[in-house]
Amino acid sequence: MYGAGDVRVEQLPDPTLQAPTDAVVRVLRSCVCGSDLHPYHSMPASEQGQPMGHEFVGVVEQVGAEVTRVKAGDVVIAPFAYFDNTCAFCREGLTTSCEHGGFFSTAQAEAVRVPLADGTLVKAPVGEDSSLLPSLLTLSDVLITGHHAAVRGQVGKGSTVTVIGDGAVGLLAVLAAKRLGAEQIVLMGRHTARTDLGREFGATEVVSARGEEGINAVRELTGGHGSAAVLECVGHLPAYEQALGVVRAGGVISRVGVPQYQQAPAGFDLFGRNITLTGGPGAQRSYIEDLLPDVLEGRIEPGRVFDRTVSLDDTPAGYRAMDAREALKVLVRP
Amino acid sequence: MYGAGDVRVEQLPDPTLQAPTDAVVRVLRSCVCGSDLHPYHSMPASEQGQPMGHEFVGVVEQVGAEVTRVKAGDVVIAPFAYFDNTCAFCREGLTTSCEHGGFFSTAQAEAVRVPLADGTLVKAPVGEDSSLLPSLLTLSDVLITGHHAAVRGQVGKGSTVTVIGDGAVGLLAVLAAKRLGAEQIVLMGRHTARTDLGREFGATEVVSARGEEGINAVRELTGGHGSAAVLECVGHLPAYEQALGVVRAGGVISRVGVPQYQQAPAGFDLFGRNITLTGGPGAQRSYIEDLLPDVLEGRIEPGRVFDRTVSLDDTPAGYRAMDAREALKVLVRP
Repeated sequence: MYGAGDVRVEQLPDPTLQAPTDAVVRVLRSCVCGSDLHPYHSMPASEQGQPMGHEFVGVVEQVGAEVTRVKAGDVVIAPFAYFDNTCAFCREGLTTSCEHGGFFSTAQAEAVRVPLADGTLVKAPVGEDSSLLPSLLTLSDVLITGHHAAVRGQVGKGSTVTVIGDGAVGLLAVLAAKRLGAEQIVLMGRHTARTDLGREFGATEVVSARGEEGINAVRELTGGHGSAAVLECVGHLPAYEQALGVVRAGGVISRVGVPQYQQAPAGFDLFGRNITLTGGPGAQRSYIEDLLPDVLEGRIEPGRVFDRTVSLDDTPAGYRAMDAREALKVLVRP
Repeated sequence: MYGAGDVRVEQLPDPTLQAPTDAVVRVLRSCVCGSDLHPYHSMPASEQGQPMGHEFVGVVEQVGAEVTRVKAGDVVIAPFAYFDNTCAFCREGLTTSCEHGGFFSTAQAEAVRVPLADGTLVKAPVGEDSSLLPSLLTLSDVLITGHHAAVRGQVGKGSTVTVIGDGAVGLLAVLAAKRLGAEQIVLMGRHTARTDLGREFGATEVVSARGEEGINAVRELTGGHGSAAVLECVGHLPAYEQALGVVRAGGVISRVGVPQYQQAPAGFDLFGRNITLTGGPGAQRSYIEDLLPDVLEGRIEPGRVFDRTVSLDDTPAGYRAMDAREALKVLVRP
């Protein structure tokens, strides 16, 4: 990406092992993320450009001398961050704060160097042409992010949940909340094709109105008091304000949309009703390991969020389609 | 209070029973709260004025026909809010969101009408002249508020905790954290007499520096990464910013100082490191019931926060002394 709206496909040298803990992975499937659209809207023009992409499943091509958990030929899933999975933060499940970790940023490509491969990668027992690849790819980000929203939102058996946002993360937050036992799941979104998929994933009601009207509709659906858990899957300030409006006293707002604001109403608006605000990037390997059996055995089909596939050369068209909301989520097939 | 700095003592009609669920309580001890200083600084001049005070222990004088849990002659503690203790919110421990409740605001007085007396009052098995009255009075607000901070901050055995603020609530948050098993308790405060009491209550370290210097000092004391629980007991924006600076990735900022700001840095500052922001007013009757035995049996002495006693007529002098920081917390003895 060379600036807002300016995505180019270029030849670069192949990645190579740089540390004995590295692996090189050939990408089978990558994709465009809703968060990629933020720089697509706002990145200043740059002569150097920046590589893009943080979601991929692939085949291990090479591993460094210290890598023992995966080997050449394995089909693997990478979460959107890499980490050693042994430091104090990783042991607490806070892999995105790993002392030696970082975030992937070169996955819209033919191959990726994976640092800390033993900590990061999860082997998937499928072939390179598995029809499960799209669903497995959601374990790289959008499903585990939706799952993180639900976990941080304390969603469990019988919960009342409102999900804000009908992007891929919002829809998979619905799926994750359903999977964790939520009883009522209100999805706030305005795109019928998407909210229809949300209903299939488990939404019990859909609210398309926004602002005061949307808030009143959700409160009415949730017994007048609002929703104990609100999963905010957008990242813009109006979505946060919507969350404040629909959350029940004593409830939790769990954010996984990357905040596009610095200041927010976070004084008495939260305090007066004992609201908890939580969330952040959640890339735990354990999430992938927990969710993988459900994908492999077909109990969940998160890959349904992909409604368009492009070749690597057509990635710029993929960005355009997502930006224009013609596509929900674009799969890139190198 | 008739405006900033303008506190007057006046004769008003005695409170009477207005509902069959009311009690009238003669006040044995009341006090001035740090939160009373907010209007003392900023209240616009008013011809009507407003009554003040939300903390008291007293003797039941009269009860309405439906009150069964307390009777005339009982010494009772009232939390700073009243509530039915039976609605959905109360059952979840969220008594300050009780559907029928409210907050006391007339306790700096000779007597108080207590609505929903059965839900609200806790009987204390002591006499009217008990030397425990000051400690029992802290169960009305400052101790249960400090306890709420610790509970919401997930403080438990072995926790690392930083308490921001050396007012009565901060010092009792230290005591509450210690009582819940915290291993390391860093107290941020600048008034030696107060922080000395904080050490007696359980603070393992005191940091008097503020801003970057204070943040660095706390981070150094807590292994470089910061404190898993931060109890913010002030309510001003710099205290919140301090909390952001000292909290560990994945940690909790638990606020009990009433926020004196509407907007705050609550975007990526919280999100990027998966920080949880929580807290609010916590007036659970169950808190009083949990803490009461420790007070009665002398295991904790929270009443030590009172370092000045005034008569009801001298309440204005009590406000002046607290405002000038000549007194930590002023007991009012009608």
